[in-house]
Amino acid sequence: MAYYVGIDLGGTNIKAGIVTEEGKMLNKQSIKTHAERPMEEIIKDMGELTLKVIEEAGLKVADVTAIGIGSPGTPDNKAGALVYANNLPFNMAPMRRLIREVVDLPVYIDNDANCAGMAEAVAGAAKGIKDSVTITLGTGIGAGVIIGGRIYSGFNQAGSEFGHTVLVSGGLQCSCGRKGCFEKYGSASALVRMTKEAAEANPDSELNKVIEEEGKINAKIAFIAMRRGDKVAAQVIDEYTDYLADGLANAINTFMPEVLVVGGGVCNEGDPLLVPLQEKTMSRPYFGPGVRKTQIKLAEMGNDAGIVGAAMMGKACADDKIDGISSAV
Amino acid sequence: MAYYVGIDLGGTNIKAGIVTEEGKMLNKQSIKTHAERPMEEIIKDMGELTLKVIEEAGLKVADVTAIGIGSPGTPDNKAGALVYANNLPFNMAPMRRLIREVVDLPVYIDNDANCAGMAEAVAGAAKGIKDSVTITLGTGIGAGVIIGGRIYSGFNQAGSEFGHTVLVSGGLQCSCGRKGCFEKYGSASALVRMTKEAAEANPDSELNKVIEEEGKINAKIAFIAMRRGDKVAAQVIDEYTDYLADGLANAINTFMPEVLVVGGGVCNEGDPLLVPLQEKTMSRPYFGPGVRKTQIKLAEMGNDAGIVGAAMMGKACADDKIDGISSAV
Repeated sequence: MAYYVGIDLGGTNIKAGIVTEEGKMLNKQSIKTHAERPMEEIIKDMGELTLKVIEEAGLKVADVTAIGIGSPGTPDNKAGALVYANNLPFNMAPMRRLIREVVDLPVYIDNDANCAGMAEAVAGAAKGIKDSVTITLGTGIGAGVIIGGRIYSGFNQAGSEFGHTVLVSGGLQCSCGRKGCFEKYGSASALVRMTKEAAEANPDSELNKVIEEEGKINAKIAFIAMRRGDKVAAQVIDEYTDYLADGLANAINTFMPEVLVVGGGVCNEGDPLLVPLQEKTMSRPYFGPGVRKTQIKLAEMGNDAGIVGAAMMGKACADDKIDGISSAV
Repeated sequence: MAYYVGIDLGGTNIKAGIVTEEGKMLNKQSIKTHAERPMEEIIKDMGELTLKVIEEAGLKVADVTAIGIGSPGTPDNKAGALVYANNLPFNMAPMRRLIREVVDLPVYIDNDANCAGMAEAVAGAAKGIKDSVTITLGTGIGAGVIIGGRIYSGFNQAGSEFGHTVLVSGGLQCSCGRKGCFEKYGSASALVRMTKEAAEANPDSELNKVIEEEGKINAKIAFIAMRRGDKVAAQVIDEYTDYLADGLANAINTFMPEVLVVGGGVCNEGDPLLVPLQEKTMSRPYFGPGVRKTQIKLAEMGNDAGIVGAAMMGKACADDKIDGISSAV
């Protein structure tokens, strides 16, 4: 049995776990990132967390084939570095070299949304499927494109930024500089914005009661109010799923994945989200008569997607005999 | 030296040629499609045209490794069939079987826009580049996505329909059923529409004089009038390149190709199109600091792209030892 370590690096937490070659996670640990620290300290902690999960699983370093890191931003797996991340002080961070000073194993690095896609493709909603796309709805929209069982992210590992494709030309200002990006209309944050606008415009709607009960606005409010029969809430969900379906249909026409996986906390709503989303999305792509259709599924890997996906990305790189030892940075 | 036959099947003409393994075309022939005929007759003609170009080049059938067909619509290369095409009577057309009744060679089939991308990747603007995307601006917008030197078009060969991604939510009605597709704003037809609208709204503009001189409206009118100093024409080009740049930036954020090739007749305009297009497009994608950038180039293969690309698609399939003999249809 071969084992892999997956590290899920976030702005708030660093998580790591031992994962089998089938994508089963044996154990995991989490520490705070403290992103204000120098990158050397953060990366050293990633190495030490790796040693900890190896030991906890009753394994030795020699039992582990490779370490995979899923990180925000744009990685350079060849150089073993993180080129750039928005929310971490990691410009050209030599991750491979610094982690290998703590744990002497091959180290691979890819984007976190890509790793989430890998997790679904190995052990989740797209298990065993060669070509899949996983769209994760959160503060923004992440996309992980799996082609032939491998992550595809372009010549510079900066691709599959599907959240930053313009869907509404001249629309809302996006943090990326463009206007009308998909993530301004299809992310969980977009649903929160639509909920807030509808609640303000309709002071008597159930939306406002739910917001008061919950003590805050979040992506669940509209679903709760809709289940109580509120028409304004149903309109919010209708508007949100319209935009989301348009973005998903764009992803289907572009990639024609066998399975399109939709993930993120909002997917916990299940059928009230999935059913209209499937209906709306599947009426739009460009399938001619007789052409096989993409299946839309909800993500299954939940919070473990980051760790499992990073580990399975590491496995794929090791299987492909990519050099995870030499560092160009 | 290995030789390949490329067949470029269109609604009006069938073209075929002999192509070397480096993507050099030795000769070509063209006949009318007469698309109103039964598919059996059309496909038989494709086989006979193949025999003709082989003979004309002084070769024998045994000198040819494979036949590649670039076709409109959605192919099924495994089945050796054309599943569906909008403008041809070819539902589940058993192309491989029928062509092999005339010429006993392996037969491969892919979409014409994908083949155009293959031509640019083997012998044109993206020569030697592993990951490229070719966007062809015509009546619609075709896209050919090359990943790792191979055509990528999804699990059902129906993908990379980038022209049918919504760019302007709720915008102009597209023939595909959706509203606001990229091809309604970025195709040569879109430029013609914008030219017509501007000419009608500005009866005194130079646009109208050029239309009268040319005897018709086409995609060149606005460029000609702009070169004569017409401000209305300059606005048309500005609006057109704005939308086009938005769609190209979407393609870059999605695929991050090393080279993005833009083709189609409108590209004969050269720098007056390319320079503003490069400036506008490159200011939009999501490149972080230090991340390598995509290059935008004009297509180089011109009218030969279809034949050369089909032949080189056939070569790639033969190199990959895909079965081009058995027919499932």
